[in-house]
Amino acid sequence: MDLQNINFNTRKWVRPEDLNANGTLFGGSLLRWIDEEATIYAILQMGNGRVVTKFMSEINFVSSAQQGDLIEMGLRATKFGRTSLTMRAEVRNMVTRRSILTIDRIVFVNLGPDGNPAPHGYTEITYDRDRLPAEHLPVAVAADA
Amino acid sequence: MDLQNINFNTRKWVRPEDLNANGTLFGGSLLRWIDEEATIYAILQMGNGRVVTKFMSEINFVSSAQQGDLIEMGLRATKFGRTSLTMRAEVRNMVTRRSILTIDRIVFVNLGPDGNPAPHGYTEITYDRDRLPAEHLPVAVAADA
Amino acid sequence: MDLQNINFNTRKWVRPEDLNANGTLFGGSLLRWIDEEATIYAILQMGNGRVVTKFMSEINFVSSAQQGDLIEMGLRATKFGRTSLTMRAEVRNMVTRRSILTIDRIVFVNLGPDGNPAPHGYTEITYDRDRLPAEHLPVAVAADA
Amino acid sequence: MDLQNINFNTRKWVRPEDLNANGTLFGGSLLRWIDEEATIYAILQMGNGRVVTKFMSEINFVSSAQQGDLIEMGLRATKFGRTSLTMRAEVRNMVTRRSILTIDRIVFVNLGPDGNPAPHGYTEITYDRDRLPAEHLPVAVAADA
Amino acid sequence: MDLQNINFNTRKWVRPEDLNANGTLFGGSLLRWIDEEATIYAILQMGNGRVVTKFMSEINFVSSAQQGDLIEMGLRATKFGRTSLTMRAEVRNMVTRRSILTIDRIVFVNLGPDGNPAPHGYTEITYDRDRLPAEHLPVAVAADA
Amino acid sequence: MDLQNINFNTRKWVRPEDLNANGTLFGGSLLRWIDEEATIYAILQMGNGRVVTKFMSEINFVSSAQQGDLIEMGLRATKFGRTSLTMRAEVRNMVTRRSILTIDRIVFVNLGPDGNPAPHGYTEITYDRDRLPAEHLPVAVAADA
Repeated sequence: MDLQNINFNTRKWVRPEDLNANGTLFGGSLLRWIDEEATIYAILQMGNGRVVTKFMSEINFVSSAQQGDLIEMGLRATKFGRTSLTMRAEVRNMVTRRSILTIDRIVFVNLGPDGNPAPHGYTEITYDRDRLPAEHLPVAVAADA
Repeated sequence: MDLQNINFNTRKWVRPEDLNANGTLFGGSLLRWIDEEATIYAILQMGNGRVVTKFMSEINFVSSAQQGDLIEMGLRATKFGRTSLTMRAEVRNMVTRRSILTIDRIVFVNLGPDGNPAPHGYTEITYDRDRLPAEHLPVAVAADA
Repeated sequence: MDLQNINFNTRKWVRPEDLNANGTLFGGSLLRWIDEEATIYAILQMGNGRVVTKFMSEINFVSSAQQGDLIEMGLRATKFGRTSLTMRAEVRNMVTRRSILTIDRIVFVNLGPDGNPAPHGYTEITYDRDRLPAEHLPVAVAADA
Repeated sequence: MDLQNINFNTRKWVRPEDLNANGTLFGGSLLRWIDEEATIYAILQMGNGRVVTKFMSEINFVSSAQQGDLIEMGLRATKFGRTSLTMRAEVRNMVTRRSILTIDRIVFVNLGPDGNPAPHGYTEITYDRDRLPAEHLPVAVAADA
Repeated sequence: MDLQNINFNTRKWVRPEDLNANGTLFGGSLLRWIDEEATIYAILQMGNGRVVTKFMSEINFVSSAQQGDLIEMGLRATKFGRTSLTMRAEVRNMVTRRSILTIDRIVFVNLGPDGNPAPHGYTEITYDRDRLPAEHLPVAVAADA
Repeated sequence: MDLQNINFNTRKWVRPEDLNANGTLFGGSLLRWIDEEATIYAILQMGNGRVVTKFMSEINFVSSAQQGDLIEMGLRATKFGRTSLTMRAEVRNMVTRRSILTIDRIVFVNLGPDGNPAPHGYTEITYDRDRLPAEHLPVAVAADA
């Protein structure tokens, strides 16, 4: 796959609260950041605020990061299913451009108002925000919560 | 693999701060919790505080969780390499025992004082804490930080 | 009381975000952890998601902890009242097994749907999850919130 | 003891991240707030940045709080020991002035440069900041961290 | 303006989680603290829980702070509009009394039940809590959330 | 100034932990996000990890945001001083493109190894990362911390 085509958007400046007890970037923080960024990407591509992470393929922790490092998160849709979207993720150091983490496939599922998988109707990547609803994204509220 | 043999230890009570914008458990919080628990398990098995996550095999988000749910995290070593440890992870709902997330293989690497992979000398699971150093775990401090 | 019978479940790996300004474990983090763990224990014993901390007897901060330390939290029911449960808590270092904090009595009250104390119907400890409801725990939503 | 003489300083506006899974103020957040405020009070009274919580007497959770409530924390020194300070704590609702939590005695110990208890030299409450060092408070760094 | 008349209430003890990657106090934490404190002050003065920050005049980051420093936040109303309140803010080091941040004007707007600006009816500072409602502050819940 | 030329990079999905007690986006979270993003931008433009926020001009909170909203942060350098950089900031809703917050001028100062302002040597915006050091950014450690 063409890595040059990954869109890097969200950035992080590694602060003390992101470190594990060994003084390097906590893997859990890294996974939390990529999951949030992937969700935003899925919403933009499927034009729906109700999407859920369904699957991640293997994750390679290629290198680590330290306090003060600048990190950026990149994503690119690789496959549009009927009710799902598959994307590739890469996190890298903004300074050295060295890869920190790669995930080949993250699969999101598009949910309908009933909470079940629903067709999203798209087959190609958009580079614009033309699929988003005009106002606030609908927020799902669990019926028994 | 025999799921009955997974050790479930750390528990969580899902609070508002753990939710995503759809009101269900945020996948990023889940991944952060399992990464911390897996690190603790790796330290206990390899008897060393300097361990790093190297690889995770595919992650299945089997079901979700809601505010108020009780969650428990389970781990079990499946393979002892010379400088590595492979384990299986499962997160489940304590009430329904329904699986929330499974990861077949999480690989940790044991690091020596120089930060490079080092043999840990173990080939079997311990159910005790007999491999831990007698006092505080050594904390790695990055040379240029 | 027989300390050997305390159940230690949840574990923590002390990270920079858990430290006070002196570089040792922040007492406030410690109290937050034990309160969450005690709540989970109370829910399991009284079979009800609506429980509140009512009282803690004196707290002894026996020793401290540092970044990188592994901590485990232990609890054991010591008295079943009609609408309450009393338990003993201990937090200790997993490596040295040295006690970090002990609390002789934490009292939880079982609440009914109206928010008032309600009988829970139990008189003995359970080591299983046989008292939990079959599905999601009921979540109390304040009427005027 | 004369409750009118307690000094209320730090205030909190209860936000969603402070709630437990039942939608009321999380006891653990409350304990974390009072521990931080008590530490600041102890530093001001003993004129030393190296102080540790040693003991808390029983804690009464008198009433709860909800999202949007305004909370204030009050403290008052009740006894000056040679190397220690005892204080009383109360957390209350700023609107209703109803007590939320009371702790009769919180004991702090004054530490010397070697980390052992050291005399602080004071026997009376100060209402000023006349005991503080002229510049940054000395920060203890653990020798083996 | 008479700086002596600023009321300093909420205090912070700078912990590792408040630091930026350079090891000094993270400006974002500082802004978050002052915004929370200013909101509480606005609620007390306008007697209404539904207030929003509308404007901040220029912010001078006069000096920084380090781990272990004690910080206090001060506010004083400077102008009562029909539906708004203007206040001055200062954050300073409790030890050195050196200013850390000053904001000449923070403007809050008082909202009615419909979410639009509404007259608050006050023209003078109160030093008491005589404007607060008798029970819980009303919490606004967005109609479409 | 040409708003079209602002670079929007980091994105946020508003979660429960980002809300104030009124259920809308907490102003303090917003200010924390923009401060982190502005710091990263300043590091990229001045090619130095040791930069500090010195001044912000007035901040207009143009509109608010709710749980589930997608937010993006935009920055653009507007003036290169000898030891400083001035930039304009805008936070907007990704869906409606409505402005949430604007700051006309945020001024960062470039620090030398001694912690004093130092010339950065640049007079024009870079759209690349050609000014960054080859390896980890130098982290300042306070001498007396």
